[in-house]
Amino acid sequence: MFNEAAYLEEVEALLSAHVPQKEALQARLFEAERYSLLAGGKRVRPLLCGAFCALCGDEAGHALWFAAAVEMIHTYSLIHDDLPCMDDDDLRRGRPSNHKVYGEALALLAGDGLLTKAFETIACPQARETCGNEAVARAVSCLAELAGDHGMVGGQVIDLSTENNEAAGLDVLQAMDEGKTAALIEAACVLGCLAAHAGEEQIHAARVYAHGVGLAFQIRDDILDVIGDQAALGKKTGVDAHNGRRTYVSLLGVEKAQQLVEEYTEQAVRALAVFPGDSSYLADFARRLAQRMH
Amino acid sequence: MFNEAAYLEEVEALLSAHVPQKEALQARLFEAERYSLLAGGKRVRPLLCGAFCALCGDEAGHALWFAAAVEMIHTYSLIHDDLPCMDDDDLRRGRPSNHKVYGEALALLAGDGLLTKAFETIACPQARETCGNEAVARAVSCLAELAGDHGMVGGQVIDLSTENNEAAGLDVLQAMDEGKTAALIEAACVLGCLAAHAGEEQIHAARVYAHGVGLAFQIRDDILDVIGDQAALGKKTGVDAHNGRRTYVSLLGVEKAQQLVEEYTEQAVRALAVFPGDSSYLADFARRLAQRMH
Repeated sequence: MFNEAAYLEEVEALLSAHVPQKEALQARLFEAERYSLLAGGKRVRPLLCGAFCALCGDEAGHALWFAAAVEMIHTYSLIHDDLPCMDDDDLRRGRPSNHKVYGEALALLAGDGLLTKAFETIACPQARETCGNEAVARAVSCLAELAGDHGMVGGQVIDLSTENNEAAGLDVLQAMDEGKTAALIEAACVLGCLAAHAGEEQIHAARVYAHGVGLAFQIRDDILDVIGDQAALGKKTGVDAHNGRRTYVSLLGVEKAQQLVEEYTEQAVRALAVFPGDSSYLADFARRLAQRMH
Repeated sequence: MFNEAAYLEEVEALLSAHVPQKEALQARLFEAERYSLLAGGKRVRPLLCGAFCALCGDEAGHALWFAAAVEMIHTYSLIHDDLPCMDDDDLRRGRPSNHKVYGEALALLAGDGLLTKAFETIACPQARETCGNEAVARAVSCLAELAGDHGMVGGQVIDLSTENNEAAGLDVLQAMDEGKTAALIEAACVLGCLAAHAGEEQIHAARVYAHGVGLAFQIRDDILDVIGDQAALGKKTGVDAHNGRRTYVSLLGVEKAQQLVEEYTEQAVRALAVFPGDSSYLADFARRLAQRMH
């Protein structure tokens, strides 16, 4: 069975080790990176990565570098997303956002640094030793594809173009959520399988699970922006309505949107059937996310 | 002998193929990326990558994906560097800079997209097939290290912190130039060797060559900012003085700075002695860069 607490400790230690605190001309950069990377997020993506590695029969710890890489990508995207030229958010995870503390230039560079460090981490000597060069090369390819133009970055661009666009329908929202949120969750799940040298059938099932969890996660996020508590969430609420952004909630209402969250979650859970091992952790995890209040 | 013209054609074709023109919700993102990536830069880094691959006994074409990746990193850094919160430059390669055409948000995302695409390209199936998984994994590790906090991004941070800092001496300038410029040139040279499965002695020599060429390149850049012609350079001149930025030229004057360019260039050329093949292309290349007017 996947030991969440022990694994999370290892994730935090690895993230910290890869962004050193030290005296250097760039010390302020490291500080800015640590500020956002070690701010105690939910670590959804590293947990999924480790849990899939364990489910495919390997130790969760073998996926640590891949898990850390996905979290670095997630963190950089939050820093850039909060910048004035993007969402212009002052608050993130209950604290001032990165550029409010370090200034825009350093926040931009901290984001670039973390994005680059993700690939340094995924292909670091220990990862190559533990997972093998083939798994590392495939993981780089998969993560870059899902974090880039056809994945997360692409989703942000669709998001930009739908703000104040009253013509955006559910199909556009789904394309946006698949890019912005589901893609990186898919990377986390697939990379966990790759670390464990899983077969194609298992990788495919991980993709289906991730697609359901990813869409459910984003729709739940939109719901929390309406019904959530700013203190518990650690970020401003009501932002979507304020920005005139169309979401599942603005199109369907809270109740129907939550029905959709639960449908996507059950789709995800059903995909776990192909794994011979005990997949109850991942089933519970998906259902917890569907009900989360922060 | 390395065929520069034929190789450059292949580089341009590959760069273009990896940033497709197509109908999609993110079409505007692809357009912004193509605008900067296919703007006809000097392609110094791809040329170095291919030439080292050829010198190590392999076809230059085997290094194409690695070469394209380094150029994508270089291009993203120019886009982010020109943003208002950084250098706030309106002109690049003789045309309006990316954010002047596409807006700040899309320019930010185009940079993020190109940075991510570099790693997608380096580890794409064809690259893994041609160069092998070990060379790919090592290339990812090397490029990320040299493009990140201890390389290019770190150099930018040092640059930020030295603007208007009258205490910055030659040692700080060198650390900044090593990061901002020499690191990515080093990545280009080393990745060429890795594509050809070169040995450690050759990789070391490539690093020494790159260090000399990289520092010479940046100092020549600083000289051109003073003596160069804005039309030939395709960017504003006099920027360093305007920004109160200390450079080798402001500390040593043009003549002594050019002496240093030539010393670093000859250091680089001497490092080529360990290669059994014909290294005259790379020697000439270094000397051409030392005299360039754009």
